[in-house]
Amino acid sequence: MFRQSTICAISTAAGAGGIAVIRVCGEEAFTVVDKIFRSKRKNDSLKNQKPYMVGYGTINDVKTNETIDEVLVTVFHAPHSFTGDNTVEIACHGSIYVQQEILRLLVDNGCHLAQPGEFTMRAFVNGKMDLSQAEAVADLIASTTRASHRMAIKQMRGGFSAELQKLRTQLLDFVSLIELELDFSEEDVEFADRKKLKNLAENIEQHISQLADSFKAGNVLKNGIPIALVGETNVGKSTLLNMFLNEDKAIVSEIHGTTRDTIEDLATIEGLTFRFIDTAGIRNTTDQIEILGIERTYQKIEQAEIVLWLVDSTAINDDVENFVGQISECTAGKKVILVFNKIDKLSDEKLEYIKAIFDSTDMDKIYISAKSRTNTDALQKMLVKTAHYKYPDNNGVVVNNIRHYDALLKAKEAIIRVISGLDNNISGDLLSQDIRECMYHLGEITGQISTDEVLGNIFSKFCIGK
Amino acid sequence: MFRQSTICAISTAAGAGGIAVIRVCGEEAFTVVDKIFRSKRKNDSLKNQKPYMVGYGTINDVKTNETIDEVLVTVFHAPHSFTGDNTVEIACHGSIYVQQEILRLLVDNGCHLAQPGEFTMRAFVNGKMDLSQAEAVADLIASTTRASHRMAIKQMRGGFSAELQKLRTQLLDFVSLIELELDFSEEDVEFADRKKLKNLAENIEQHISQLADSFKAGNVLKNGIPIALVGETNVGKSTLLNMFLNEDKAIVSEIHGTTRDTIEDLATIEGLTFRFIDTAGIRNTTDQIEILGIERTYQKIEQAEIVLWLVDSTAINDDVENFVGQISECTAGKKVILVFNKIDKLSDEKLEYIKAIFDSTDMDKIYISAKSRTNTDALQKMLVKTAHYKYPDNNGVVVNNIRHYDALLKAKEAIIRVISGLDNNISGDLLSQDIRECMYHLGEITGQISTDEVLGNIFSKFCIGK
Repeated sequence: MFRQSTICAISTAAGAGGIAVIRVCGEEAFTVVDKIFRSKRKNDSLKNQKPYMVGYGTINDVKTNETIDEVLVTVFHAPHSFTGDNTVEIACHGSIYVQQEILRLLVDNGCHLAQPGEFTMRAFVNGKMDLSQAEAVADLIASTTRASHRMAIKQMRGGFSAELQKLRTQLLDFVSLIELELDFSEEDVEFADRKKLKNLAENIEQHISQLADSFKAGNVLKNGIPIALVGETNVGKSTLLNMFLNEDKAIVSEIHGTTRDTIEDLATIEGLTFRFIDTAGIRNTTDQIEILGIERTYQKIEQAEIVLWLVDSTAINDDVENFVGQISECTAGKKVILVFNKIDKLSDEKLEYIKAIFDSTDMDKIYISAKSRTNTDALQKMLVKTAHYKYPDNNGVVVNNIRHYDALLKAKEAIIRVISGLDNNISGDLLSQDIRECMYHLGEITGQISTDEVLGNIFSKFCIGK
Repeated sequence: MFRQSTICAISTAAGAGGIAVIRVCGEEAFTVVDKIFRSKRKNDSLKNQKPYMVGYGTINDVKTNETIDEVLVTVFHAPHSFTGDNTVEIACHGSIYVQQEILRLLVDNGCHLAQPGEFTMRAFVNGKMDLSQAEAVADLIASTTRASHRMAIKQMRGGFSAELQKLRTQLLDFVSLIELELDFSEEDVEFADRKKLKNLAENIEQHISQLADSFKAGNVLKNGIPIALVGETNVGKSTLLNMFLNEDKAIVSEIHGTTRDTIEDLATIEGLTFRFIDTAGIRNTTDQIEILGIERTYQKIEQAEIVLWLVDSTAINDDVENFVGQISECTAGKKVILVFNKIDKLSDEKLEYIKAIFDSTDMDKIYISAKSRTNTDALQKMLVKTAHYKYPDNNGVVVNNIRHYDALLKAKEAIIRVISGLDNNISGDLLSQDIRECMYHLGEITGQISTDEVLGNIFSKFCIGK
């Protein structure tokens, strides 16, 4: 029943625009659109329009004999469409009234209004993509930064699915052998090499762990790597921040326009998104940091992955040991980069003198002028290098979906039981059960195993029209 | 220079959606998109992709070797496109990030961002449509009601242009003859039959007047025919209003959602849009209307074309003459329909009694129950009939553009000068001058005569991407 109904929805963003696209999809897509579309070329059914071909004509309300719009229709024949069903895409003028009228005519002629995500759900049901790919479609549409976009498109194009499929296939081979043993249980044979199985299970456990661990990294990359900007007032924090934000002006200003309040200090540098957290907790001189607002600064630093500790080079404190000790105290466990700003105001001798003092410390440090942009490129490279070190981009798959993470953890538990079972020489039927459970959870991610509830949950988060 | 540059813009509504369409247009459209598009089929230029054909592939950032999105591209070869230029339409996933990235890549590879209306302006410059049709594209996109939509689509499809063209051609024939006379001025010949010319001029004057007069009607139809709902409290005004508004629920609720404050009481009945103006100025009994808030009610009634005067049938005043007199006084010049409500609460005898009393008055009247929806269909038909009488839908052209109205008035002045000139036997060169002026103003509407300033003015009001 589900696959037989023909559905329609406006697939472009809501509101008025130059053009809008209405998608009609299902067995009767051609028949329904034929009833309201009059081609400029000939009075022929869309069924006979060449696949992937755009036709020009009008949408008409037959009852009132009114022309609703001049449109372009594109025809996709099953299974060669996004959903795998017959599909007609109607590109009309983007008037709200026209969009509504065409939808109304489609419904009057037998279409159902599509539920959120119903097109993608059909693509999944028709085997055009697996579940993790379908979820990536929603992620892709929601993506607003390069990092989140990269993860989504990689997942949509099947990177993740391929990896999971490989793991499942390996497990399936083994579990088949083990279950074959069970058929011959009275003869006490061992088709499945236990040593090989243990190797495999350990490999798979490692692999699943890696994927699960990537979840935290995935979230960080999705939301931007948090960088705390720490420093007294007047050391040049906002000048530095502006320098970062200007790096990719178009994208930043775009983000500003949309969700200014929440992510206003995002900047993309060499493809990585950084989220700059301003700390305003430090006033007066470095000697007094332990007194002044340490509590607040601690909290901000706690959220960061990297701390940029800004110092005014023209007001350097000579007590290096104490200074560095204080910084370490505030930033325990965090990656700190000491940034000496305002070097444009120093004589070369003074700069050399400062460098000599601080060279002995084992902190990362850099000497810049945010205002005259001296050495700021090097600082950015340093940030990117540090970020890459923390989140190596081995072109591997990054998990950024809590449902996948959850399933991976369960799969991991099961495979760990397999390993300890092998150590304890447990029986084949128990082993088989644990392997099957691991496969089950991996299959949940790609949707080979799925329930209506899970599907409903996933697709209800889509926008209508996709 | 203008026509050589290749432009691009997001043509669908702003924001995230299932899909978005980016339009690239200009001589280099294929070359530019070739640089970022990799087809799934073969490594061939879009130049060689069949016209009107949709191709599947990916958009790539060659510099970073990243895949930005999987897209469908449709190719239109000049002059067979909306603008008349080479055009590529890229249908991508509707992520804001993806849309921006593709635009960025297009600009990096030589496109200019399109100005508002630039696509339609090119269509005009390339002779794909005249100026009034181009303006209708903007009207169509902005249309939110059936009436405004109908006017726009009629104009877009060239109804208006054809009429004006006919008038201009007739004038041109005559002016040519007159100007021929001037060449032979020494011989005192008369090629152009003055009597025929006067007939023609009078016809044209009449025609132009009709068009100019339709401006008021056009505006009313565009904004909804204003109906004042007058009546004491508790006579059932809001029940009646709800009945009207429910008639076309989908469309009304759509309008509600978008611009609730300004047009919340619009309802579409049999294709006509009515704008209901609530009047709250009358309290107490009809006897006291002259005392109570007449001033305010007058103002509201003044804005209306039709007045629905609601009366509670269960509380009828027997002094019919006085009652009707008061109504006439309030509604001078307006079309009034007397609506007797709550007839479900009357016995048949009482109803007959009331009818007998009021039958003698020459006002339009109807007996209904808004609550039980008795006879409300008849009331709606009455409204529609009255509206059609005031604004006959003779399938003629309705002017709803102030620029056109202005040009028509000027053309009318010129043709009137032609008529009086003929009466006074003025010379051929003066006649010719007036006829040319009339033609000039008619040509302004279709854009045969246009200045950069006028064009800039018109197209700057478009949305970007159209």
